[in-house]
Amino acid sequence: MESRQVYMDHGATTPLREEALEAMLPYLKEKFGNPSSIHSFGREARKAINEAREKTARALGADPEEIFFTSGGTESNNMAIRGAARLKGKGRIITSAIEHHAVLDVCKDLEKDGFEVVFLPVDRYGMVDPRAVEEAIVPGTILVSIMMGNNEVGTIQPIREICTLARKRGVFVHTDAVQCVGQLPVDVKELQVDFLSLSAHKFNGPKGVGALYVRKGIPLPPIYRGGGQERKLRPGTENVAGIVGLGRALELAVAELPEKTARLQKLRDRLIAGLTSLEGVALNGHPKQRLPGNVHLSFQYIEGESLLLGLDLQGVAASSGSACTSGSLEPSHVLTAMGLDHREAHGSLRLTLGRGNTEADVDYVLQVLPPIVERLREMSPLYNGKK
Amino acid sequence: MESRQVYMDHGATTPLREEALEAMLPYLKEKFGNPSSIHSFGREARKAINEAREKTARALGADPEEIFFTSGGTESNNMAIRGAARLKGKGRIITSAIEHHAVLDVCKDLEKDGFEVVFLPVDRYGMVDPRAVEEAIVPGTILVSIMMGNNEVGTIQPIREICTLARKRGVFVHTDAVQCVGQLPVDVKELQVDFLSLSAHKFNGPKGVGALYVRKGIPLPPIYRGGGQERKLRPGTENVAGIVGLGRALELAVAELPEKTARLQKLRDRLIAGLTSLEGVALNGHPKQRLPGNVHLSFQYIEGESLLLGLDLQGVAASSGSACTSGSLEPSHVLTAMGLDHREAHGSLRLTLGRGNTEADVDYVLQVLPPIVERLREMSPLYNGKK
Repeated sequence: MESRQVYMDHGATTPLREEALEAMLPYLKEKFGNPSSIHSFGREARKAINEAREKTARALGADPEEIFFTSGGTESNNMAIRGAARLKGKGRIITSAIEHHAVLDVCKDLEKDGFEVVFLPVDRYGMVDPRAVEEAIVPGTILVSIMMGNNEVGTIQPIREICTLARKRGVFVHTDAVQCVGQLPVDVKELQVDFLSLSAHKFNGPKGVGALYVRKGIPLPPIYRGGGQERKLRPGTENVAGIVGLGRALELAVAELPEKTARLQKLRDRLIAGLTSLEGVALNGHPKQRLPGNVHLSFQYIEGESLLLGLDLQGVAASSGSACTSGSLEPSHVLTAMGLDHREAHGSLRLTLGRGNTEADVDYVLQVLPPIVERLREMSPLYNGKK
Repeated sequence: MESRQVYMDHGATTPLREEALEAMLPYLKEKFGNPSSIHSFGREARKAINEAREKTARALGADPEEIFFTSGGTESNNMAIRGAARLKGKGRIITSAIEHHAVLDVCKDLEKDGFEVVFLPVDRYGMVDPRAVEEAIVPGTILVSIMMGNNEVGTIQPIREICTLARKRGVFVHTDAVQCVGQLPVDVKELQVDFLSLSAHKFNGPKGVGALYVRKGIPLPPIYRGGGQERKLRPGTENVAGIVGLGRALELAVAELPEKTARLQKLRDRLIAGLTSLEGVALNGHPKQRLPGNVHLSFQYIEGESLLLGLDLQGVAASSGSACTSGSLEPSHVLTAMGLDHREAHGSLRLTLGRGNTEADVDYVLQVLPPIVERLREMSPLYNGKK
């Protein structure tokens, strides 16, 4: 088989799709106005943002006035959690042990500031138990923040159930849906969620732009202060081209969803079947309730990092977990929370499929990965000790 | 004279220059990796960010490790001021009455949180007196935040003098240099400033990206929490294309600076001379210490808004002040601080020149503006009362 370039790190970021770039280009060229300007240049930029807001709202089952554009998922998460904390005042915040750091570390900061934070455990599949959420809701609970789909192991949480029971108790729910929007159907009204974060570059939109859904009527206070943009919740001159790209990419992702989901699931399941048939390879995350493109495996006797480098040399781009914590020597907090020991955590590999991937890509990975595993194990003192 | 499109609102935003878009395009196409990924896609994105950081540092006389990329000027200002407040703890903050809302409103929030904030007055030219800064520095002063050039009236502050005397007293200085970087020589070492904010879309770079200079050794705490990006000061997947565009646009702006400044000043002075020769028209801001492209005028007996609409119909894009506060009925806080009464403040017009503007643009404005003024005055009961 010929060598090829295979990008299987769509959980980290996705290529900007052509239609989105096409939609952005006029706003990177002649339509450069500041949306706050009242002249014609400003008005055409304002119109573009309004249209992107409508598209985004439509994709989520929201009203346009419930959509606030941000610089990305991290900002959306920070705004929702810090904003809710400021709005409600000190009390209990319920989250999980496997959140992205943009949720986890905000909660830890709030803990230092005097909020009580409950970090719910997960089972060995990375699943939060809705009954545990229910039990953790005591008087004085101000917010539940549970992610919709985990960025490392791909486990999809029972977020609708969590929202329903929190709503019954009058507690706000935020969900970090960065890995789900554009990958799975997401309807904020059906979920009954109060705040939802999304990021454009995870669904073939541009980097540096995201959105926060805020349920109508919640007077979320801003973190940053400045001009009146985004109804004062998120001041600063709007990233017009980025917002246009987000709207276009999301509109297309949602339109293609049923076809894409089915296709990715099939590729994913082939990849999982092929790789778990190797000796000493185990799937992490939930076998069924998992993101359509997510494959996360632990390889015994191997360092994930070495596996990545081996794959990179073969043209395959993959990850050992979250790109945001690369460079850290700590084992993944997600895998640790799922009960994996350090060795299993360090021997992990994440392959995340996206719209560009084909059967041939899967074939290629199934062909090049086993020899790399074998070679690395040959070099491993632990593996040799076992033989 | 034929009708034409004349954009004279470069204080609000500037068109993205072709070379910057050219530099960005590969990162909006095939070079789409997440800079935190360790595979080849990630490494080429990381390399691009490093290069942009070097260019940005070089343009400001800074070290690359002193440059942190943000989502824009508003975020940079918030990060510097809130960060310094958290780092130093409660104390006195000295700012001016004419700051952008992204400084002013952060300071007002901090005032509510128990910080003492001194809002220094300005003279009728919009100038802060360095001696007033010196007098305001008392024991327990933690930060001076004075803008470098005012976004409305264009007055350039004696920021170097302010930095020198604050440094002597061991007090941090932040400057919002959003209107100056790329317009005037800015050297952080020469200024002896501790924090400096800039925004790409003000110097023909893209919207949605900016930077904060933080002097080496200052452990500024982050506002947002998340991944380890920008050495944890500004987490979130980097806006790679935007950052590349910022670096390229800044590099070019600085290279062209002497020629551009001289050219804009000449156009500006022609515009000022031509328009102030009309009856009842006065220049606002400092006559000499002013941004090279800034013309800010008060027109007696006229609403600035009507003037803008009249100009827009003739193809001229201008502003009545800051785009960020458009839609607000309040008179400009800058003009009020300079001692203008409500009527003068409401009759104001800002024309801001930029690299695309030509002699012919100035001629056109000098031709179309006087008849608009005349027509509006004919309709003004105040003006007719005077006759």
